[in-house]
Amino acid sequence: MGLNVTQKLIKEHLVEGEMTPGTEIGLTIDQALLQDATGTLVQLELEAMNLDRAKTEVAVQYVDHNLLQTDFKNADDHVFLHSAAQKFGLWFSRPGNGVSHPVHMERFGIPGKTLVGSDSHSCAAGSLGMLAIGTGGLDVAAAIAGQPYFVKMPKIMGVKLTGKLPDWVSAKDVILEMLRRHDVDGGVGKIIEYYGDGLKHLSAMDRHVIANMGAELGATTTVFPSDEETRRFLKSQRREDDWVELIADDDCEYDVHEEIILDELVPLIAKPTSPGNVVPVSEVAGKEISQVVIGSSANPGLRDFWIAGAIVKDKTVSQDVSFDINPTSRQIIQNMIDTKAFGNLITSGARFHQSGCMGCIGMGQAPASNTISLRTMPRNFPDRSGTKDDQVYLCSPETAAASALTGKITDPRDLEKLFDMSYPKYEAPELQIIHTDMLVAPPEDTSGLELEKGPNIVSIPHINELQNQYDVPVLLKMADDVSTDEILKAGAEVLPFRSNLPEISKYSYTVIDPTFYDRAMKSKDQHGGHIVVAGDNYAQGSSREHAALAPKYLGQVAVIAKGYARIAWQNLVNFGILPLEFDNNDDYEKFQQGDMVRFRNLKEDVVNRNPITIVIKKEGGDEVEITTKHSMSDRQIGILIKGGIINDFKEKLN
Amino acid sequence: MGLNVTQKLIKEHLVEGEMTPGTEIGLTIDQALLQDATGTLVQLELEAMNLDRAKTEVAVQYVDHNLLQTDFKNADDHVFLHSAAQKFGLWFSRPGNGVSHPVHMERFGIPGKTLVGSDSHSCAAGSLGMLAIGTGGLDVAAAIAGQPYFVKMPKIMGVKLTGKLPDWVSAKDVILEMLRRHDVDGGVGKIIEYYGDGLKHLSAMDRHVIANMGAELGATTTVFPSDEETRRFLKSQRREDDWVELIADDDCEYDVHEEIILDELVPLIAKPTSPGNVVPVSEVAGKEISQVVIGSSANPGLRDFWIAGAIVKDKTVSQDVSFDINPTSRQIIQNMIDTKAFGNLITSGARFHQSGCMGCIGMGQAPASNTISLRTMPRNFPDRSGTKDDQVYLCSPETAAASALTGKITDPRDLEKLFDMSYPKYEAPELQIIHTDMLVAPPEDTSGLELEKGPNIVSIPHINELQNQYDVPVLLKMADDVSTDEILKAGAEVLPFRSNLPEISKYSYTVIDPTFYDRAMKSKDQHGGHIVVAGDNYAQGSSREHAALAPKYLGQVAVIAKGYARIAWQNLVNFGILPLEFDNNDDYEKFQQGDMVRFRNLKEDVVNRNPITIVIKKEGGDEVEITTKHSMSDRQIGILIKGGIINDFKEKLN
Repeated sequence: MGLNVTQKLIKEHLVEGEMTPGTEIGLTIDQALLQDATGTLVQLELEAMNLDRAKTEVAVQYVDHNLLQTDFKNADDHVFLHSAAQKFGLWFSRPGNGVSHPVHMERFGIPGKTLVGSDSHSCAAGSLGMLAIGTGGLDVAAAIAGQPYFVKMPKIMGVKLTGKLPDWVSAKDVILEMLRRHDVDGGVGKIIEYYGDGLKHLSAMDRHVIANMGAELGATTTVFPSDEETRRFLKSQRREDDWVELIADDDCEYDVHEEIILDELVPLIAKPTSPGNVVPVSEVAGKEISQVVIGSSANPGLRDFWIAGAIVKDKTVSQDVSFDINPTSRQIIQNMIDTKAFGNLITSGARFHQSGCMGCIGMGQAPASNTISLRTMPRNFPDRSGTKDDQVYLCSPETAAASALTGKITDPRDLEKLFDMSYPKYEAPELQIIHTDMLVAPPEDTSGLELEKGPNIVSIPHINELQNQYDVPVLLKMADDVSTDEILKAGAEVLPFRSNLPEISKYSYTVIDPTFYDRAMKSKDQHGGHIVVAGDNYAQGSSREHAALAPKYLGQVAVIAKGYARIAWQNLVNFGILPLEFDNNDDYEKFQQGDMVRFRNLKEDVVNRNPITIVIKKEGGDEVEITTKHSMSDRQIGILIKGGIINDFKEKLN
Repeated sequence: MGLNVTQKLIKEHLVEGEMTPGTEIGLTIDQALLQDATGTLVQLELEAMNLDRAKTEVAVQYVDHNLLQTDFKNADDHVFLHSAAQKFGLWFSRPGNGVSHPVHMERFGIPGKTLVGSDSHSCAAGSLGMLAIGTGGLDVAAAIAGQPYFVKMPKIMGVKLTGKLPDWVSAKDVILEMLRRHDVDGGVGKIIEYYGDGLKHLSAMDRHVIANMGAELGATTTVFPSDEETRRFLKSQRREDDWVELIADDDCEYDVHEEIILDELVPLIAKPTSPGNVVPVSEVAGKEISQVVIGSSANPGLRDFWIAGAIVKDKTVSQDVSFDINPTSRQIIQNMIDTKAFGNLITSGARFHQSGCMGCIGMGQAPASNTISLRTMPRNFPDRSGTKDDQVYLCSPETAAASALTGKITDPRDLEKLFDMSYPKYEAPELQIIHTDMLVAPPEDTSGLELEKGPNIVSIPHINELQNQYDVPVLLKMADDVSTDEILKAGAEVLPFRSNLPEISKYSYTVIDPTFYDRAMKSKDQHGGHIVVAGDNYAQGSSREHAALAPKYLGQVAVIAKGYARIAWQNLVNFGILPLEFDNNDDYEKFQQGDMVRFRNLKEDVVNRNPITIVIKKEGGDEVEITTKHSMSDRQIGILIKGGIINDFKEKLN
């Protein structure tokens, strides 16, 4: 039997395990991607591991999240990351050079390679025929140090694309259609591989749009073949030599099947507050908006800005709309100027920002209270924009630009009537303007180089090992689909503390319950820790490992949940928080916030894979006993009982 | 005897008083300028005054300070200001359209007109032959309501410019030379008028550079004639019809004389932490830097960006430097693209930001700890950049660009050797690209329009009237030259609370003493208020009236100082804080922080211009008596005893 693209990629890199869905496999990693919000911690981890030099073929430290610099902290971090990249032999993409995923694709991506990235959208590199997985920073640190990457072998979902997108419909609508059908957990435990005739009308950067937001499906990653479109893209980047063909065998099979007839798609939009809350634009058309934002790794390509520019050309956006443009990279800006897209946008009234993630991660351009913001970004979880109770809608550049003109949510197909406009046809330049001067190469000789640490960069405190006995409270009981944005929110107030664990821990779960930190610190003193209980798909969304590290710092012993998002589950293990699952999901109802729970023989039961018994002590004195389980590999059990991977590494080094 | 330009402007607008230096005059006001950081309060004041429609010929609400939008507050303020501009009949310059002073000059400035602006750099419009005065927001509100503007008739300093600037030396070096000679208080009580043959080599925008930073000299304003260069500028803005000639009579006189031979100037730089701390660049050349910022109202013209672009063309800035470009306005960006300046800068590695004040007011791009930031901005007061203990140097675009290339402070004349470069010659375009779409005109009919107030926009609480007796403590004793940045700091943390007095008051004097707020609130409870004691030039710098309103809210009864910055002195009166001066400056030494002071018959003594006696009660029980005075006009006394201008207006309306 032949292999699909995913299987070929895995087979080529497999060093442990078998390709049986659900069992753990180990993969060699060729490339590593770091962004700054998670990267400072990774660099501190590399320091703790006493790494001499990165072992991957390519490792790049990007700076795209924390660019606002309202005080010394972000600027200090940039200096620190620059020094760390030099010391450990990584490339350094300077602040404002651009958003990691598209820049990586343009400058470093190579078909057939594996990549891990400390950002959940690292899967975007799958657009080039790579196996690219977003994961916690510790996993990336391990990969940079030459360790294999461990993951449960996912199922492979084959999505057949046929036909051709209609006018005014673009790649964003393809991934929104996937989210409409499968919601934010439809990809959990799966790699999504696209194939079929429809691919020939989707450029590599269109595929980036689809691969990037595969993260919103909860997928392990997304994979596209490397074909003539891939070659055309690499040629436009003057890297045709890096192209290799990588296509599925004719007789390959997929574990799960899906099909999208591109001709049938319409403009789609994700309503607040989930990327899975998708409806046709026409269903919400007419609602007044206060903001339109175009940019981010979800719509990063020259085409995406060009089409918006072509739509607003010689017009002025509504006076009630802030039209914010978040240009992907310095290189994209240069090409936007070259293709007149920049001029068209600025003349229409756009506010241009420095290249970076900006409002996608709540770093600026938060919308006004009680107003609608339309964004081409990938996520609209509550509060992520920076505005409490925000109303963020996700859509294509076509829908965004049309709505900026009218001041209302507008189906871009209506532009034909409203402005007597026909769909602008994008012609990709054969060769793009290339800009690499802001990518600082690792030095040949790193000896004698020192880390430059500002006062906000604080070493990671000692992390406790797993004990046999606990009597701790249930400090929080949560519903399904809690995101990492709710566990440890992003935004300008919080992100600057990402290298300062004691400070950032104060924001743990504040979106859900502002009293959490105080209660947790008290419980740490009184009881030595706490647990939390959650529904399904716990800790979906961003890969940020602070959503595990900060609760661990506050004494979190275990999470008991109906199910976990993949990256978050790994992060919990890596930082020594026990991720338990119910034997019977109905037992979720037996917990109340404030209950005490009793664990006995916990460590032994974890190691021996025994059922893990929990006695719930209710307020009146009643006791209820339930059993739970874990699904960690032997390797992970070894890590967990030591209190996590940092302790594990420390032990290996001593 | 003939008249100089200043006298002609004043004579044309004089409605009260005589042109005798030191006496109060009242002037009719033709134009008003508001920015957003001070403007929200002004709009709340206009609301309190029940204004139907602005009475000035032109009033413009700009949004240039608070653009970062890390939460709902700034975005809400933009919506509020838009609604207020519409309701009260003002122009509205949309967020990101550009920095107020250069945009105003380009689009609205008219020779021969008067202007007041709620921003200390409003004097920049003097570059066009206007009498343009920065003042507190309440004064601007009064002018918009049709009231005259009152100010003490200043002395007029005539500065004769002769010759022509050498290569690599530009307008910024002229104003830095003035600061080198006269320091930050050399212009107090003066209007600075430039004249002489040297003017013909200074474009209107060069004059803007000089007029703008006249604020740093403490001058009431700066005035240039309206001549052929002015006409050329207005023509380039396609407003030649607005030009009128306005030049000094041959036989005019000045109260104070100064002369600058332009040929003799060298590149200059202001060292931390005062714009008056000026030395030749060569004296500090070679120091390593981490940041270069080009932009702000101090170097806003197309030429300033063009020359920087020409210097870095086909080169890459040092990898240790963050090269931040703060483009003045959307129109300037369009002209930068047109003249290739934009491309040259972006290719060299520049981080482009949205048009606004940005780091000049601590709203982004704060430098890293313990590093040097070089800026073409007007101010480098401590902590203003957003980084505690910052090291900000102020210089010309030539010096900034040269230093960005080398990573060290660099005399731009050295570029001839270092890069075999000759001084790039700027040729101003005869006609600039004009962009006016982001300026929203006031509606003809404002009836039925409502203010849109977000949850952070809070009405001004009741302000107490002056009492006859006080027994209050000296809560703070300060040295000379305390700036408004130290009294109520700017920056991303504080500015968003500018429409929320109870919140913003918590930041009063925090730069000097973080315990101030708690002590003041306690003293307000226990003693009904407090006083502070200061040296000379109290409250220099920014015009922000929160530096008076917030202390007033905390119960500040009086300031006793050796001297006051002009705008701050007016703000104190306007908000009902008594600005006292020592009869004998040596009495400053008799105060210690923590002393109690006793006032009796205070109100009567103020009204009757009696000596104001203060009994200082020392800790041991000793009492020391001193006398002080005030220099308010009768009009101002009337305002002060009512607790300030808001109460005065309320009374007039009822």
